[in-house]
Amino acid sequence: MYRPEIKVIDCTVRDGGLMNKWQFDEAFVGEVYEALTEAGVDYMEIGYISSEKCFSRQEVGPWKFCAENDIRRIIGEREKKIKLSAMADIGRIDYTDIPQKTDSSLDMIRVACYAHQADAAIDLAHHCLDKGYETTINLMAVSTIGFRELDEALNDLAKSSVPIIYLVDSFGAFYSEDIDLLAKKYMQSLPGKTIGIHTHNNQQLAFANTIAGIIAGINFLDATLYGIGRGAGNCPIELLISFLKNPKFKVRPLIKAIENQILPWQKKIDWGYYVPYMISGVMNQHPRTAMAHMESENKEKLLDYYDQITSALP
Amino acid sequence: MYRPEIKVIDCTVRDGGLMNKWQFDEAFVGEVYEALTEAGVDYMEIGYISSEKCFSRQEVGPWKFCAENDIRRIIGEREKKIKLSAMADIGRIDYTDIPQKTDSSLDMIRVACYAHQADAAIDLAHHCLDKGYETTINLMAVSTIGFRELDEALNDLAKSSVPIIYLVDSFGAFYSEDIDLLAKKYMQSLPGKTIGIHTHNNQQLAFANTIAGIIAGINFLDATLYGIGRGAGNCPIELLISFLKNPKFKVRPLIKAIENQILPWQKKIDWGYYVPYMISGVMNQHPRTAMAHMESENKEKLLDYYDQITSALP
Repeated sequence: MYRPEIKVIDCTVRDGGLMNKWQFDEAFVGEVYEALTEAGVDYMEIGYISSEKCFSRQEVGPWKFCAENDIRRIIGEREKKIKLSAMADIGRIDYTDIPQKTDSSLDMIRVACYAHQADAAIDLAHHCLDKGYETTINLMAVSTIGFRELDEALNDLAKSSVPIIYLVDSFGAFYSEDIDLLAKKYMQSLPGKTIGIHTHNNQQLAFANTIAGIIAGINFLDATLYGIGRGAGNCPIELLISFLKNPKFKVRPLIKAIENQILPWQKKIDWGYYVPYMISGVMNQHPRTAMAHMESENKEKLLDYYDQITSALP
Repeated sequence: MYRPEIKVIDCTVRDGGLMNKWQFDEAFVGEVYEALTEAGVDYMEIGYISSEKCFSRQEVGPWKFCAENDIRRIIGEREKKIKLSAMADIGRIDYTDIPQKTDSSLDMIRVACYAHQADAAIDLAHHCLDKGYETTINLMAVSTIGFRELDEALNDLAKSSVPIIYLVDSFGAFYSEDIDLLAKKYMQSLPGKTIGIHTHNNQQLAFANTIAGIIAGINFLDATLYGIGRGAGNCPIELLISFLKNPKFKVRPLIKAIENQILPWQKKIDWGYYVPYMISGVMNQHPRTAMAHMESENKEKLLDYYDQITSALP
C-alpha cells in the first residue's frame, strides 16, 4: 500500500509506558528516537503531557510530563527530523501547563477522551491549536457506546477546527468488519478531516485492523515497536512498516531497536497476546482486570480469570 | 458468524508436534482430546500417518505415526464424539501402511502436497477415499508459485474425487487481500468442492486471514490451542471459537486445556510471534532458517538474522 498521505505515529514510549509507569531510561528513549528517525517514521509520541499537580515524579517517569528540558536531553544538538507528539488526557492537565509551540520541541498534541467528554476535548484541542500545535482528538472506547452517542460526538467533532480524529479500539474488541463500518462512518460524519486509527492486540487483530483501516481510507496509523503497549499491546510497527510500500520507510533500524531496547523489557513486563487479555477483548471490557490478573501470582490461572469475568455478566 | 457448514479442525498435536517431534505425553493428548470434544470442535488432527520405515520411534513420538493402538489409548472405552484426522505427507507413507477405515479410529486423512505433487496427492487421496476415509488435499506454500502453476494444480484437483481442498499459507506471507483473492479463485476453479484454510501467524494475521477466508466462503477452518504450531504457529482456536457464533462451540474447555497443557510447553519451545518468524513471513520464505535461528544461542540477535536473510536476496 503506497499512499503518500499515510503517516505513521509511533507510540512506544507513551503507550508502552502504561505498562511500566514510564520508567524508560534515557538510553531507551534516545535509541527509539534515533531508530524511528532513521526508519522514516513520521511522528514519535514521546509521552503524555500532564500536570505535575496530578502525578508525582517519584511514581511516574519523566515521559508522563514531557517537560521541554527532558525532551531536549533526547534530541541533543542535532537537527530534529521526526515530529514529536504528546498525548493529553482530559482533566489531567491545566491549560497553563502547555507551553507555546515556539517554546516547545513538541509538534503535535493529541487529546484523548471518551465520547461524553467530546466538548471538553474540543475546547482543549482548540487551545492547543491556538498555541500553534498540530492537534488530534482520539475518541476512546467507542466499542462500548451506541450509535446515537457516537453520532452526537462525531457531530460535535465535525463542527470543531480539529483536523484529525482517531478511531480507537481501546479494548481490542473490534473485528475488521467493525473497523470497516466505523471508518466509513467517521469519514462520512467528518467531511474534510483526516481519520486516524489506534488498535489493541487482544485478539491478535491490531495489525489486521490497521490494514482494514488503511483500505477504508484511514491515513494516520498508530503503532509501537514489537507491539509494546497496555495489556495486549498495539499494532507492531515492524509489521506495519513492512506492509507499507512507501520507499521512505525502512524496517532495519526498527529491528535493531527491538533487539537492543525492547527485548530486555519483555523479560520484565507482560504485554502481548495472553489469554486474560484475549478474554477481556472478546468480552469488550477495559483491560484493567486482566492486567491485575497478569500482575498477580495467579497469572497462569486462566480459568479463574475466565470464570471471574463471565460470572460478572448480567 | 453462524454458518452451520463451518467445521473447525484442531491441529494442536499434529502442527504443534513439528516443534517438539511429537513428544507430547498421553496426559497431554488425552486432555486435548477431552477439551476439544467438550468444546464442540468438529475434528482433532491427532498427528501424521507415516511409514515406520521413514522415521524412527526413537526420534519422533507416536503421533508421527498414529498407530491404532496409540489412538485407542487416548479414546479409551468411551464413545468417540469428535472426528479424528491424520495428515499424510507425499513420499513418507506406503499405501499398505493405511488401514481400512473399518479397522481404524481415524475418520479423515488429509494429504499435504506442493503444487508439483498434485497428481501424486490425488492418487494417495483417492486411495484413502477407497479405503473409506473422508479426505482432503492441502496444497502447501501457494504463496511461492505463479498463477499458471496454481491453475494447473487446481484444474487437476477439480477433476479429482477429493471433496475438500485447502488453501494453505505455509510461510505466513499472505495479507487478507491475498486470502480474499485466492479463496475466490479456489471456489471458481473447484466447483462443488468445499474449501479449507490453514494459516500461519508470522505476521500476526493467522486469525484475521481465517476470518477473511470465512467471509469469502471457506468452511473448513484449521486452528490450534493458543496457536501452537511450527514457527510462528497457527490461528489460535480460542479466538476462532469466540468469533464463531454457532452455539455448539464452547470456549471454556479450551481455556482449561491451555492452562493445564499448553502453558507448560510454552516454557520449553518458542512458537508464536517472534521477529525472526516475522522476517521469514514478510520475505515469503520457509521458516526453517528462522527456526534454526530461534534454536541457536543467538536467538535474540535479531539484526544478524535480518541481515542474513536480506543479504541472500538476488
